[in-house]
Amino acid sequence: MRATVLVRPKSGILDPQGEAVESSLRKLGFNVGQARVGRVVDLDVEAATPGEAHAAVERMCEQLLANPLIESYEIEVHE
Amino acid sequence: MRATVLVRPKSGILDPQGEAVESSLRKLGFNVGQARVGRVVDLDVEAATPGEAHAAVERMCEQLLANPLIESYEIEVHE
Repeated sequence: MRATVLVRPKSGILDPQGEAVESSLRKLGFNVGQARVGRVVDLDVEAATPGEAHAAVERMCEQLLANPLIESYEIEVHE
Repeated sequence: MRATVLVRPKSGILDPQGEAVESSLRKLGFNVGQARVGRVVDLDVEAATPGEAHAAVERMCEQLLANPLIESYEIEVHE
């Protein structure tokens, strides 16, 4: 089963990459407000049901994919 | 207007970060297939309509947010 995980810096957490994107976009003439940069992880997961896949990916987020102190995550299971 | 951009390595392009995630997840005991890692960029865009915002973000992708040679992007405009 295919899963997509979005990992984002929590609000209030410093995001230097987002700040760099923001100021570069402004220098290029774009009218943008705040920009935040995170990661997207696409995974193939062995699971019998979407619910089981979701639970497995949640454990992966807690153990490896995200730092729960400073990042939030969002899981989507396809199919 | 709020926009989300997903930037992913094109298939066939080497993704060392994805490979590291994949092998680490396996070492942790997870049964996963291929993993690929990209970026998610959340942006506030000044635009009158969602269509206008989408067009602006597309230009941002071409000029800064993605490397079209090795990355593909997906744009979502919210609201």
